[in-house]
Amino acid sequence: METVGELAPSLRILLGPGPSAVHPRVLKALSTPLVGHLDPEFLRIMEETKDLLRAVFQTKNALTFPISGTGSAGMEACFVNLLEPGDEAVIGVNGVFGTRMKDVVERCGATPVVMEAEWGRVFTPDQVREALSRCRRPKLVALVHAETSTGAWQPLDEMASIIHNAGALFMVDAVTSLGGCPVQIDAWGIDACYSGTQKCLSCPPGLSPVTFNQSALDVLRKRKSKVQSWYLDVSMIEKYWGEERVYHHTAPISMNYALREALRLVQEEGLTARFHRHQRNHEALAAGLAAMGMALAAQEGHRLWTLNSVTIPANADDAAVRRQLLEEYNIEIGAGLGPLRGKVWRIGLMGESSTRSNVLLVLSALEDILRKQGHRCTPGAGVSASQQVYSAG
Amino acid sequence: METVGELAPSLRILLGPGPSAVHPRVLKALSTPLVGHLDPEFLRIMEETKDLLRAVFQTKNALTFPISGTGSAGMEACFVNLLEPGDEAVIGVNGVFGTRMKDVVERCGATPVVMEAEWGRVFTPDQVREALSRCRRPKLVALVHAETSTGAWQPLDEMASIIHNAGALFMVDAVTSLGGCPVQIDAWGIDACYSGTQKCLSCPPGLSPVTFNQSALDVLRKRKSKVQSWYLDVSMIEKYWGEERVYHHTAPISMNYALREALRLVQEEGLTARFHRHQRNHEALAAGLAAMGMALAAQEGHRLWTLNSVTIPANADDAAVRRQLLEEYNIEIGAGLGPLRGKVWRIGLMGESSTRSNVLLVLSALEDILRKQGHRCTPGAGVSASQQVYSAG
Repeated sequence: METVGELAPSLRILLGPGPSAVHPRVLKALSTPLVGHLDPEFLRIMEETKDLLRAVFQTKNALTFPISGTGSAGMEACFVNLLEPGDEAVIGVNGVFGTRMKDVVERCGATPVVMEAEWGRVFTPDQVREALSRCRRPKLVALVHAETSTGAWQPLDEMASIIHNAGALFMVDAVTSLGGCPVQIDAWGIDACYSGTQKCLSCPPGLSPVTFNQSALDVLRKRKSKVQSWYLDVSMIEKYWGEERVYHHTAPISMNYALREALRLVQEEGLTARFHRHQRNHEALAAGLAAMGMALAAQEGHRLWTLNSVTIPANADDAAVRRQLLEEYNIEIGAGLGPLRGKVWRIGLMGESSTRSNVLLVLSALEDILRKQGHRCTPGAGVSASQQVYSAG
Repeated sequence: METVGELAPSLRILLGPGPSAVHPRVLKALSTPLVGHLDPEFLRIMEETKDLLRAVFQTKNALTFPISGTGSAGMEACFVNLLEPGDEAVIGVNGVFGTRMKDVVERCGATPVVMEAEWGRVFTPDQVREALSRCRRPKLVALVHAETSTGAWQPLDEMASIIHNAGALFMVDAVTSLGGCPVQIDAWGIDACYSGTQKCLSCPPGLSPVTFNQSALDVLRKRKSKVQSWYLDVSMIEKYWGEERVYHHTAPISMNYALREALRLVQEEGLTARFHRHQRNHEALAAGLAAMGMALAAQEGHRLWTLNSVTIPANADDAAVRRQLLEEYNIEIGAGLGPLRGKVWRIGLMGESSTRSNVLLVLSALEDILRKQGHRCTPGAGVSASQQVYSAG
């Protein structure tokens, strides 16, 4: 075979659906020489990481730790531990990740009771009530807080009482929200939740923070069958991440170094300031896009700060625009997925990528490229509208 | 919560069962700023990594890539993709990892046909024939090439014809062998194999290289049921790692940077030289231990170069010795697992950790600590015997 050369990737500006930009302090943590995964020093790092995760999840749940896989592994971990064959699970399907949840539920031998909404729209409490009324004995209801495929922001705060009254657990996908907008596990009555590291936590992909409360643990303890996944069996992993330190698998040590550092950065900024930053940059981007004659695609009033789904203007060449952004500006934005392919772009403003500079740059770059493709807008209108948002504070 | 301080772990000498020492070039690769996982530059990195993995697996298998989880995820990936409910799988159980395989097989709804050997001993072709004769229609036979829990080195070269004649696939766990001793996928007729990154490849833990040949793929294509794990469903992952580039999960980008660099180091050293290095350091360690009156625990003639299971001398205090090695010398070695707890130490000489300096140091440190505990041996005998091996070339 040919000799493989030195690793020398381009310096990208990551404004897609993840990964987001990684802070140099996190990259430095990644390059720290390793201790063993059962070393007393690593055990302390595990404890600190759990504490930091509890703070960002806004929970007191003891069982809060990173699954040793990406966000999809976290999704699977939640389902395979809480579902058994024959169980019913209400799944909100309004994008790629709800669709994936349904698939995972079926692979558990459970029955998905599907609640559908148009891609880009969110679910109302009444829709959840209606779906629950179609169940015999629902085991859980799963909703995607931040649909990365559409940019829709699902309200969660009124759901728990409805779900709990039906005797079900409340499970949430917070992959694209955790660290970028409020995720209040305890206050909102969420029983199980998973996230990813490469979105608003601005850590590389590879770990999936999860949290289970006592109700979820009770369901786990009462299982009749073994969890179908050995790797994701939380009753074993909790003995590894808990006080017993029973060897299960080998934790990805460097990735845990990185997550700890990324969470320290979250702690230093403070959740309130961090959420405000995400909100303002989203508003500035939205104002700029509007001034350029472009609209956000997700349901009004339910648009994520972290992932902006933009309707592609008529006559714009989707692939060419994304290619030019990458090649001429080193900017990555995301393509549409599934039915939204060719219809939307996805501009992520997550974690370290959510900055005023990035908003102004992507607006300016988009204007340049689109105008060359014949798109009409007043020169500088996007950047100017965006700056007004910042000036207004 | 308390403020969590800067990451500042001790500089350990990693001579346990993994992770092994990570080369500074790999740490540097880890700290490289990220491109997106669908960036054309990352796609090239994926292709290069697949090529480099094929070289170390000594295979032409197209489907050769790293699973986005640790070695245990690779084990699970092999079983869940190749087994369906009701299938029979012959499992060699002679340590922790064979025991784990049996558990995973059961979680697939398949029937493990167990072939047992004393921990530390290996299986003969006749034992495999006998186990197959107990099956109705065996789907696969799984053997652990390098049992990390015992230090036993399972011969594999005569197994394929027996297994294939019975109509079964040959699956191998090469977690603690790949990159440290020959793993000849094609020459030995292995149909599916998984490994880990944190052993003889000297990359941090977090990925699991796997390879499937055409026979394994044929079994996958003919499945009647969906793979029970969405995350580990190889028929979907191969479209992400293959030419289609269909989004599945987000690959752990930084970990893939690291693996690519670790594999470049393997390529630069050359497999033959690398294996010879592992062999010589093992022989020097064994000679030194023998001169100090200590024996290796695994079956004679079947002792791994990469993981040395040492019988703990009578009167030595297991935990105290390991603690002193860690606290006074910054050396990590492994404790015994399961029935070998308190009976053996596990000294890993894997990848970058397999060096003459480390062999001499661990012998010297062990002598110092053991003599203080009353162990009798001629001062300097271990180091001297070890040096003779090196002097002999």
